[in-house]
Amino acid sequence: MSDSLTPQELADIFEDITYFASISGAILDKYFKEPGLTTKDLEVQFKDSDKSDPVTIADTKAQEILTKAILTKYPHHDVIGEEDKHATDISNIVWVIDPLDGTRNFLNGFPIYSSSIGLLCNGIPVAGALYIPWPNSKRHIILSAVKGLGVRINNEKYKHDIKTALNSSGIITLPGSFSKKFRFTKKFKEKSGELRMGGSIAYELSLLALGVSEYAVIGNSHIWDVAGSIPILLEAGYSIKSLSTANKGWVTFDSFNHLSNNPKYEDYLTRINPILVSPMDSMEYISANIELNKFSFLSFIKSTIR
Amino acid sequence: MSDSLTPQELADIFEDITYFASISGAILDKYFKEPGLTTKDLEVQFKDSDKSDPVTIADTKAQEILTKAILTKYPHHDVIGEEDKHATDISNIVWVIDPLDGTRNFLNGFPIYSSSIGLLCNGIPVAGALYIPWPNSKRHIILSAVKGLGVRINNEKYKHDIKTALNSSGIITLPGSFSKKFRFTKKFKEKSGELRMGGSIAYELSLLALGVSEYAVIGNSHIWDVAGSIPILLEAGYSIKSLSTANKGWVTFDSFNHLSNNPKYEDYLTRINPILVSPMDSMEYISANIELNKFSFLSFIKSTIR
Repeated sequence: MSDSLTPQELADIFEDITYFASISGAILDKYFKEPGLTTKDLEVQFKDSDKSDPVTIADTKAQEILTKAILTKYPHHDVIGEEDKHATDISNIVWVIDPLDGTRNFLNGFPIYSSSIGLLCNGIPVAGALYIPWPNSKRHIILSAVKGLGVRINNEKYKHDIKTALNSSGIITLPGSFSKKFRFTKKFKEKSGELRMGGSIAYELSLLALGVSEYAVIGNSHIWDVAGSIPILLEAGYSIKSLSTANKGWVTFDSFNHLSNNPKYEDYLTRINPILVSPMDSMEYISANIELNKFSFLSFIKSTIR
Repeated sequence: MSDSLTPQELADIFEDITYFASISGAILDKYFKEPGLTTKDLEVQFKDSDKSDPVTIADTKAQEILTKAILTKYPHHDVIGEEDKHATDISNIVWVIDPLDGTRNFLNGFPIYSSSIGLLCNGIPVAGALYIPWPNSKRHIILSAVKGLGVRINNEKYKHDIKTALNSSGIITLPGSFSKKFRFTKKFKEKSGELRMGGSIAYELSLLALGVSEYAVIGNSHIWDVAGSIPILLEAGYSIKSLSTANKGWVTFDSFNHLSNNPKYEDYLTRINPILVSPMDSMEYISANIELNKFSFLSFIKSTIR
């Protein structure tokens, strides 16, 4: 990493990535309708024939303006985003953006969504920023982090009071497909926390970074779903494990290994392995109690009925 | 109903119930911590030995102030709330309040919670108000309704543009225990909408009244979980069905029958049957496609594994 980015560049990136999240968030805010009071034509289109994967003008406008802002400041870097239309040859320093994570919520008027910006250097998450709507006087929270330089909340230093033990009245994030792939051990079930399903990975990882939720399991996501969150979580003192490709269980995550060696554009598009994020002190206990669901009659039945 | 409340009284109640929601919401707002920025001692206690049913000072303060405000204005009515400490003989006009629905979210700093106030007259829902946090300039939305007098949003007339068909990119509310008791028909599965689990029934029913979500199934709830929402949903043009006690399927809901005839305090404490709420035009279709899960080997297996 230090091959490519100097300490001064990293300090600049901290300012810039926080600013990028603010402009992207401002665009989302402009298009978000207040239910019952405003209606806005979001020009909804669908990426699939089932009409289950929507994209709105807010997604495309935010991606356009964000990409322009990043490349104006960093013309030698590249940008990869969910709403990309074409592949390009890419540099080893890549901004991975999801201008609107939680499009389905957004277009229905549910304020659980996020704008996520991550910076990768040879597959190593170097910096990240997340914008989420919030019912405070600013109407949002912006989290940002640079590797080695800590976390900021609304551009101010954030000393996160990280939890050291599981809270019996806690809330947690699991993917909808959790029980197809995983199971809790029997003894863990009772203490595992109450599930919330928000419908935006980046928003849910923000909740974790803010100390609102206890831990999160993320399914086979796209890299842009998590690239903005990972540097924030690591700098806030969380531990991240990834499910090994060989299904050998949870292994410590520190970088995207498949991107370490002259990655191509296409390499960024492959789904990444499930990850588990928890406070450092409880990771050993939690990861030991979330097991892979071996293929069995029961899991077969469960996977065929909703 | 008109036996007990005159048109002028109902008009006054519309003003008052909206005001009551605003004072109760203001108390919650005062105690809600902004994660990462403020910490507040919420004096958390637990109602159960498992420590899974928390209550905070925000619950008890809001209940105290709300009860006082209601009884000052309506000394001949009664108030029943989640945080009640003692039983009383009660009038046939009862304010059913849940000062903080979503306590677990609230104490963890997740802004999905509600203050809910309902007015019942011999078991008939006459008026309701809901306060929910929202990322707008007021930092909240207040919905209120009186039977026959329509719905207000932030005390202004609200003409809800009710949906007439299911949206393929919609979001829905189901109880965590849905698959133990119910199943979607095969043909409905694909169109049934994407599940969100917020952890506050009153907040989730607000989303429905606001046109954010498509439909909602609520499990065996307490009356204070739904009493504030029902008049709003009915006035907004939604249809409500209740699961018949004889498990004969969905029947139209218009009042709490078990409270129609000189109810006692204890009658308000019994769990109510599951309800289904949807836009009037899609109710026939949706209710026909959400079936009871008859006891079977499969449902037995599903109920024993998480």
